Amino acid sequence: MLTKAELQRLRSLRDKKTREALGLFVVEGEKVVGELLAAGFPLEEIYATPEWPGRKTHIVTAAEMARASHFPTPSSVLAVGPIDRAPLPSGTLDRGLTLALDGVQDPGNVGTLLRLADWFALDRVVLSPDSADLFHQKTINASMGSFVRVRTHTADLAVALAGVAATTPILGCDLVGETVHELPALRDAVIVIGSEGRGLSPAVAARITRRVTIPRLGAAESLNAAVAAAIVCDNLRRAR
Amino acid sequence: MLTKAELQRLRSLRDKKTREALGLFVVEGEKVVGELLAAGFPLEEIYATPEWPGRKTHIVTAAEMARASHFPTPSSVLAVGPIDRAPLPSGTLDRGLTLALDGVQDPGNVGTLLRLADWFALDRVVLSPDSADLFHQKTINASMGSFVRVRTHTADLAVALAGVAATTPILGCDLVGETVHELPALRDAVIVIGSEGRGLSPAVAARITRRVTIPRLGAAESLNAAVAAAIVCDNLRRAR
Repeated sequence: MLTKAELQRLRSLRDKKTREALGLFVVEGEKVVGELLAAGFPLEEIYATPEWPGRKTHIVTAAEMARASHFPTPSSVLAVGPIDRAPLPSGTLDRGLTLALDGVQDPGNVGTLLRLADWFALDRVVLSPDSADLFHQKTINASMGSFVRVRTHTADLAVALAGVAATTPILGCDLVGETVHELPALRDAVIVIGSEGRGLSPAVAARITRRVTIPRLGAAESLNAAVAAAIVCDNLRRAR
Repeated sequence: MLTKAELQRLRSLRDKKTREALGLFVVEGEKVVGELLAAGFPLEEIYATPEWPGRKTHIVTAAEMARASHFPTPSSVLAVGPIDRAPLPSGTLDRGLTLALDGVQDPGNVGTLLRLADWFALDRVVLSPDSADLFHQKTINASMGSFVRVRTHTADLAVALAGVAATTPILGCDLVGETVHELPALRDAVIVIGSEGRGLSPAVAARITRRVTIPRLGAAESLNAAVAAAIVCDNLRRAR
């Protein structure tokens, strides 16, 4: 049984400002909630219909779930967890492989990039504050479970990149630059991916130390952000 | 000036069934309409506010555009064009590089795949009838102009693949198979990409002649459809 106030609160978590104010996010669906629980993620509230076999804190009816859900076809479970954005201790980017997102706007793209970082076992993903919200339901869903596995940080990228050791290259995709097929094995590197519409912000572009290009044979002006990141990661991992 | 009937007709083109019944699709935005016109695409009706500098067939007010538009922030132009799905003459897939989409559901993914095919100068993209609609506004927008440049066909993939010459490999991404990094230069090949949720349909999977795997170092279960296609295309083009 959900009171009107509880229902309203759950629905209000669709809004980023409310999520930030309450420090809570909401996530729905058997697969993603199951993955969060399996990973030991501290979900505080789990609303479920009687069909949901896992842990629950509130039993609700299918009609109540339909009203709380963000989806046209609601699932049997909806959960609420704490928003926890890890800052970026200085020196972190010097070691290992980092994917840095500079204003990637679409939550689906951010989720796809998390999934990619997970596939290629990158050490971390850093999001600029103007990237799509990590705790947006679409981000979490598009990550297909990688949301719980990939280490993420939120940081002002221009500042963070300014502090990176000179021995750690900062890679940016560009239409000119060294071809991605000739990238050497890099144990430490930061791969910066820009916004879908505007590319890299000027302050971040100024920090790129290696411009990498994906050979183009046809006429498209650019590639989707996740597609470009995938090709760079595959080539970096191949070079090992 | 838009009559109520005209407005209703434009809005009805958001619905696939109506598009099919009328044989018309609708597209909005300065960039995409500009690209279609520049490519000589036969747009039949162009509704624009006085700010639109290009060709127009109907001048409308900003308020009328706001009512006709699918977007929360309408642009200055909205156009209507004929739906024309090219069939696939037999023998077509024997030559060149083909990207075949087997039930890719998301119009954004289909658009991203068209853009990718354009970047890598693939010869064509074939969509199964259960893939997202090529004439969905989101497909056209996500293609970033590649919609007009890439040759597309719609065909029953299981039937089309059954007719492919034995000398033309049919590649499918899988968790097991030869590594994508060792793909030889293939002048003729079909790259088959499955649905986001279900992968390849059984009838199409039965036609795959080379299983290709993208080396995984981390824990993600799979990669996004466009991401996997990108990595295969980059490796195929690299092998040349």
